[in-house]
Amino acid sequence: MSHAPHMTADEFRRVGHELVEWTAAYMERVHELPVQPSVAPGDIRALLPAAAPEQGERWEAIIADLDRVVIPGTTHWQHPGWFGYFPANASGPSVLGEMVAAGIGMQGMLWSTGPVCTELETHVMDWLVDLLALPAAWRSDRTGGGVIQHSASDAALSAIVAARYRLPDPAAELVAYASTETHSSIAKDLRVAGIPHLRLIEIDDERAMRPDRLREAIAADRAAGRVPFFCCATLGTTSSLAFDPLRPIGEACREAGLWLHVDAAMAGVAAICPEFRSMHDGLELASSYATNAHKWLFTNFDCDLFWVADRAALTSALSILPEYLRNAASASGAVIDYRDWHVPLGRRFRALKLWWVIRHYGAEGLRAALREDVALAAEFAERVRTHPSLELAAPQRLSLVCLCHRDGDDATRALLTAVNADGSVFVTHTVLDGRYILRVSIGALPTERVHVDRLWDLIDRAAGR
Amino acid sequence: MSHAPHMTADEFRRVGHELVEWTAAYMERVHELPVQPSVAPGDIRALLPAAAPEQGERWEAIIADLDRVVIPGTTHWQHPGWFGYFPANASGPSVLGEMVAAGIGMQGMLWSTGPVCTELETHVMDWLVDLLALPAAWRSDRTGGGVIQHSASDAALSAIVAARYRLPDPAAELVAYASTETHSSIAKDLRVAGIPHLRLIEIDDERAMRPDRLREAIAADRAAGRVPFFCCATLGTTSSLAFDPLRPIGEACREAGLWLHVDAAMAGVAAICPEFRSMHDGLELASSYATNAHKWLFTNFDCDLFWVADRAALTSALSILPEYLRNAASASGAVIDYRDWHVPLGRRFRALKLWWVIRHYGAEGLRAALREDVALAAEFAERVRTHPSLELAAPQRLSLVCLCHRDGDDATRALLTAVNADGSVFVTHTVLDGRYILRVSIGALPTERVHVDRLWDLIDRAAGR
Repeated sequence: MSHAPHMTADEFRRVGHELVEWTAAYMERVHELPVQPSVAPGDIRALLPAAAPEQGERWEAIIADLDRVVIPGTTHWQHPGWFGYFPANASGPSVLGEMVAAGIGMQGMLWSTGPVCTELETHVMDWLVDLLALPAAWRSDRTGGGVIQHSASDAALSAIVAARYRLPDPAAELVAYASTETHSSIAKDLRVAGIPHLRLIEIDDERAMRPDRLREAIAADRAAGRVPFFCCATLGTTSSLAFDPLRPIGEACREAGLWLHVDAAMAGVAAICPEFRSMHDGLELASSYATNAHKWLFTNFDCDLFWVADRAALTSALSILPEYLRNAASASGAVIDYRDWHVPLGRRFRALKLWWVIRHYGAEGLRAALREDVALAAEFAERVRTHPSLELAAPQRLSLVCLCHRDGDDATRALLTAVNADGSVFVTHTVLDGRYILRVSIGALPTERVHVDRLWDLIDRAAGR
Repeated sequence: MSHAPHMTADEFRRVGHELVEWTAAYMERVHELPVQPSVAPGDIRALLPAAAPEQGERWEAIIADLDRVVIPGTTHWQHPGWFGYFPANASGPSVLGEMVAAGIGMQGMLWSTGPVCTELETHVMDWLVDLLALPAAWRSDRTGGGVIQHSASDAALSAIVAARYRLPDPAAELVAYASTETHSSIAKDLRVAGIPHLRLIEIDDERAMRPDRLREAIAADRAAGRVPFFCCATLGTTSSLAFDPLRPIGEACREAGLWLHVDAAMAGVAAICPEFRSMHDGLELASSYATNAHKWLFTNFDCDLFWVADRAALTSALSILPEYLRNAASASGAVIDYRDWHVPLGRRFRALKLWWVIRHYGAEGLRAALREDVALAAEFAERVRTHPSLELAAPQRLSLVCLCHRDGDDATRALLTAVNADGSVFVTHTVLDGRYILRVSIGALPTERVHVDRLWDLIDRAAGR
């Protein structure tokens, strides 16, 4: 019988050390690379053989292709000039935690198939309840509990399914609510869940959902015989980091019996700093909450942090127990089986990297990092405010500055094109009130003042005075 | 301003090298550890401080906790004595690919946010169409295409949503079909999607879905005014690796206009060997297909391989395009944006590890590894067949042997308990035809003949003669 060419531990050492060096060198040189690669569709595939190799290849060739194939096709999210979309920070502790978790290769679908995968996750999510000053009832020793989900989309989908499952008549004509600024994932989740109606509620001058309009919409749907059941409030909208007012929205939801999910994907982690916590006022009225450690908390994708106020509502909706998963620990009722907290059955040991990030930085280190980004954004906003050709398109919030050219959309579009053409920075756009807007999202891990200054110089030069 | 304590490249080197050593040493010593940890619920949490650290900790302490906290709470899926559930192999190439992908930290939601993340994935999935001899129409240069999903549950959910979205009246009373042996994730997915009816179709003596019963059920639902729309056929059921007959099921689905999804989570990858491909007869009638590289193809979780015959059916169902994601490449229509192929928006660079696994082993190396497992399973089944106290509870298929004690359920239960109590091996159970069954799933990466012999000795001794 031929013997399978599994990698030996010694080969793992040799290749592993080389790849640690490669990765460290990438961290050191990424600032020299253009943020966006200059490839056209199909260019990468043209570098690859049409068929998979029949025989195993040498690692020298595999590693060489990192520089031949991968880097030329990489959009460098870890670049210090990354000001696009949102930060997706892969800190060293997180990257190494991902490797070790992969090496241990534990699949924590049940407590019994990975006790530390489960308990460490529960424990760190409890830590974060305290660190973010979330409602104490969300701790696992109360009625709630936290779980790591794949993404904020997956988290909201779980919330929607739990919200529907507790209804007396899930076959009723259900209606969900969110603001016009809500992330597109909510509409997608509702389509996935088969919910027929989503009402996009009007926003106010601060781009926050209007609770009065929410109440009106709920009342109108009820009057028409439909069943309002779910509302998503956003803390930190994608376009402008606007905050929906949780307390009046939560009161409206509570009175009408709606499940209030809070999508704080980008902004929620900022609550680790007491001075950014005012957005959370009224949070105790929410049924569920999601924020992404894989955006602005130095943990590489995927690591969405999801809490529920009532874990039984979630697990009753998502638990289906076949014989082959029965085991003594689950039957005892004394453990959490996280398979019942989300759609997938399988799950990897993501708590490890999150634990390492928190321990490496410490809470104070995390706060310092976020404060630096916010301070840089505040300075940047001030520069925009006093520039003759530019204007702020929305109030600066946390790490995001939205700006446009006073000469209108074409000028703003030209500004974005000119700035990105330099290659040393990358910004993206949105539309607010029908106007084309340039978003400056500060928060990539290696971004320092010098990189923000570089971005400002490019904008200033392209905007003209 | 305080400065955030980000890990430097040199610190990454130092800690990274140490953790490569730790991981390699884990691979070398895991066989000495008991497969299942001896911890009670709460034991792990009791080792952890009640609150997160305010100040960052030293890496010596963080790494020391791998042995103090993590290993004592780990169920060792990478143990050579792992015969439970299914293999979840984390090969060296895969583990290192996970690290490098995390280090690059690219988020490939759009082609433009990660061209190589997208194109390498498309390319490797096309390779696999050929390697697994899947229908050529599933290649990306035809009507189909492949994508890496988080799990088989997520893949099937995407299929269900696409199947519903193409219906003229998605609000009709929809019905889905699967066999009584179908994995529990299908029922869960249907609940998530809000589908009211799942018909569990009777199985035959081989535990395969009966196509005649499927036809009858579809006809009965139609006659009652309901709308049959989706069927899941299983290749390799969880309990006994039974194969549903694709051709007659596919013909019934085609005639009735149903979307046929094929769940080949465990067994599909075996088609890399020509001699195991007969299960795929009729596959060209399927609308979608999923198999898990993160089970038996040496790629650590998560790496579900999902193909559709008609990618437009999938992307039209899952694409919602907000302004802030618009970009020139997407608008050109010349690229794939994988965010439209699944529920989550974000995605990490999972193609890298899959590419590395295929290149490290080569197709022949992968075939050799699977053939070894199947040969060991065949020998094991023969031993069971000729044992006076044991019997095969199902035909041995691929790497799985189902057995029970001739003295009945209590004796089989005692057998499982005795075998697992040794600590050097781990097996799990299921129920077939109301009987308690011990499953021997051979296929953990380091498992060799000596480990299977050890398992046999334990079973033989505990069973008595």
